[in-house]
Amino acid sequence: MNNFNFCVPTDIRFGKGQIACLPEELKKYGKRILMVYGGGSIKRTGLYDTILDLLKEFEIYELSGIEPNPKLDSVRKGAAICKEKNIDVILAVGGGSSIDASKHIACAAYYEGDAWDLMLDRSKMTKALPIAVVLTMAATGSEMNPGAVITNEETNEKIEIAGPILYPTISICDPTYLYTLPAKQTAAGTADILSHAMEQYFQPTDDAYLTDRISESLMKTVIHYGPIALKEPENYEARANLMWASSLGLNHILTVGKGGAWSCHPIEHELSAYYDITHGEGLAIVTPAWMKAVLCDATVERFAMFGRNVWDLTEGDAREIAEKAIEKTAEFFKSLGLPSTLKEVGINAEKFEEMAEEAVRTSGISTRSYYHLNKEDIVKIYESCAE
Amino acid sequence: MNNFNFCVPTDIRFGKGQIACLPEELKKYGKRILMVYGGGSIKRTGLYDTILDLLKEFEIYELSGIEPNPKLDSVRKGAAICKEKNIDVILAVGGGSSIDASKHIACAAYYEGDAWDLMLDRSKMTKALPIAVVLTMAATGSEMNPGAVITNEETNEKIEIAGPILYPTISICDPTYLYTLPAKQTAAGTADILSHAMEQYFQPTDDAYLTDRISESLMKTVIHYGPIALKEPENYEARANLMWASSLGLNHILTVGKGGAWSCHPIEHELSAYYDITHGEGLAIVTPAWMKAVLCDATVERFAMFGRNVWDLTEGDAREIAEKAIEKTAEFFKSLGLPSTLKEVGINAEKFEEMAEEAVRTSGISTRSYYHLNKEDIVKIYESCAE
Repeated sequence: MNNFNFCVPTDIRFGKGQIACLPEELKKYGKRILMVYGGGSIKRTGLYDTILDLLKEFEIYELSGIEPNPKLDSVRKGAAICKEKNIDVILAVGGGSSIDASKHIACAAYYEGDAWDLMLDRSKMTKALPIAVVLTMAATGSEMNPGAVITNEETNEKIEIAGPILYPTISICDPTYLYTLPAKQTAAGTADILSHAMEQYFQPTDDAYLTDRISESLMKTVIHYGPIALKEPENYEARANLMWASSLGLNHILTVGKGGAWSCHPIEHELSAYYDITHGEGLAIVTPAWMKAVLCDATVERFAMFGRNVWDLTEGDAREIAEKAIEKTAEFFKSLGLPSTLKEVGINAEKFEEMAEEAVRTSGISTRSYYHLNKEDIVKIYESCAE
Repeated sequence: MNNFNFCVPTDIRFGKGQIACLPEELKKYGKRILMVYGGGSIKRTGLYDTILDLLKEFEIYELSGIEPNPKLDSVRKGAAICKEKNIDVILAVGGGSSIDASKHIACAAYYEGDAWDLMLDRSKMTKALPIAVVLTMAATGSEMNPGAVITNEETNEKIEIAGPILYPTISICDPTYLYTLPAKQTAAGTADILSHAMEQYFQPTDDAYLTDRISESLMKTVIHYGPIALKEPENYEARANLMWASSLGLNHILTVGKGGAWSCHPIEHELSAYYDITHGEGLAIVTPAWMKAVLCDATVERFAMFGRNVWDLTEGDAREIAEKAIEKTAEFFKSLGLPSTLKEVGINAEKFEEMAEEAVRTSGISTRSYYHLNKEDIVKIYESCAE
């Protein structure tokens, strides 16, 4: 079991009606709020009005239109508002995109140069505005972690920024806010949560027994409730379990005692950076392809463990269980209505080489991942799920 | 799934050699340290010298001799030192007893009256000194939670105090410190961790699926590694998994979305309050007795789930699996060398009535536990494990 530090200071307020605490919590930081959100969905659902009503004693500035893969340009706009209006606290209302943009804005607000500098040199990230979250998606776990992924549309780079000052101070997680999610978002979010657990499960360490068992618990939860949430969008139990799984899926608890770089996320990040596809859809495409590519004598035992403990497979030897587990994973994504080929999301072979090169350049996939992959390996993975 | 708040700010430094960070971390709070510990074991193992050597730039005051069930008298002594010496930070070196005593001392240091007042009226607990922990036991989880149990030897009361100001600020969890634990402590600690998970698992809520699966993960971990740690005291993997299980076992993560009062702990607390027996031994005695007493049509499904998911039982109907699970649990405690009757720890029937009455009076066992028990029920439980 590797050494680790674990400290997650975010205050989670989980459940129906928890938003009522917002005014009291926000006033700890001041009166001037930058509210960051995406499209018009929070206006359609009434959440926007609820929040404005709760916060009528505050001065609220807005940054709307945060993109599904949040763009540097939005961050620059947000940072400018923070500086101009002396913002005290950022309120992210939405999913990973709004939260990630808010995190980058929170530290860019204290930086004199261009926000992108902070992505390239973390030592420039010294201070951040407090961030409060009202969560409306179960997917990225950004509500309970210190990471943010931002896309620079000028260079096609999609890079992660992270640091303890970026933990949200408080996150309101009300599962009823997921009731109105489009099916595609529910499915993509479910794929994202499952992928987070898999990325941390498929790592070289074998003695972090408790961590592995907790990962399996989380994966079983996602597999159990993903389809229920799609069929019954207002099933509270399903939404609540998925929402909590999203937070635990990436708050470090699935990685303690383990270590290493991720695999499917770097392969996917290039797809969404170059083609702006939905991240969870990209993961549903590349994950089974990655599993097939790396299944070998060195990895078969862990894949079989995954098959036995997550998919309840009992028949056959380790290789058979591992292969069946890959099949079940692919079927699961399909059953959620997610794509299984790049063709389905409009991606052809044109940039496979370039994206594979970028995946290697911007991640540890070739040096520190579960099964090291070089540029050629990644091109082959793209090819194997091309159509 | 019940609403919940979750916020665990303790900074966990887990693994070999993590103690090296101690001087840097402690100097954030000041120079004057009250070091709280138990018997002479940390002197025998060399940990005491290691700490003094690391902290030679600090002013260290000591409170040693903290009892296995920490006593009010020790708390009073500690609070007096804090006041007299203007202590900046408390350093608990040990297991739950030293940590619990430190927590009570930490708030008593800011209270003018008698420390016991804080146990009876939590509103008097307004401020606490920061607490740092060097953990040498895997059992109570006190290193990552805001609770403390203190015994008033004058009144035989064993009461819990809790509040967000009592979270340790930092806990050094080095599994190698468990290598020298006597077998009895390893066994009793293992029983305590398992019992914590069971107390939270056996609660009325059925829809906190993820929480229940995580509990099962933790119980499987304890069952897997408890016997290994006993057989091979220097098995790092076993010690590390047990140590992390102890922290997660009672840091609130096994109870989120659930709720209700505990059962076996109140029944046991009276045993250790009246007879000063080892808490984990008491739990090993009363837990199977409690399970047999409450198994009925209303509870059989959860007991069967426990049997299937924790003990991997597959044969038979729910009732058979439930009964087998109780048997396996009792056998597990015995296999660790723990007692299974009150007679073995020198307790006779003399105070069954009085203890049962106290258990009801000082806990929610008769009104909010998984299966409500009144005084007579508890007397019967004591009788059933008398000899």
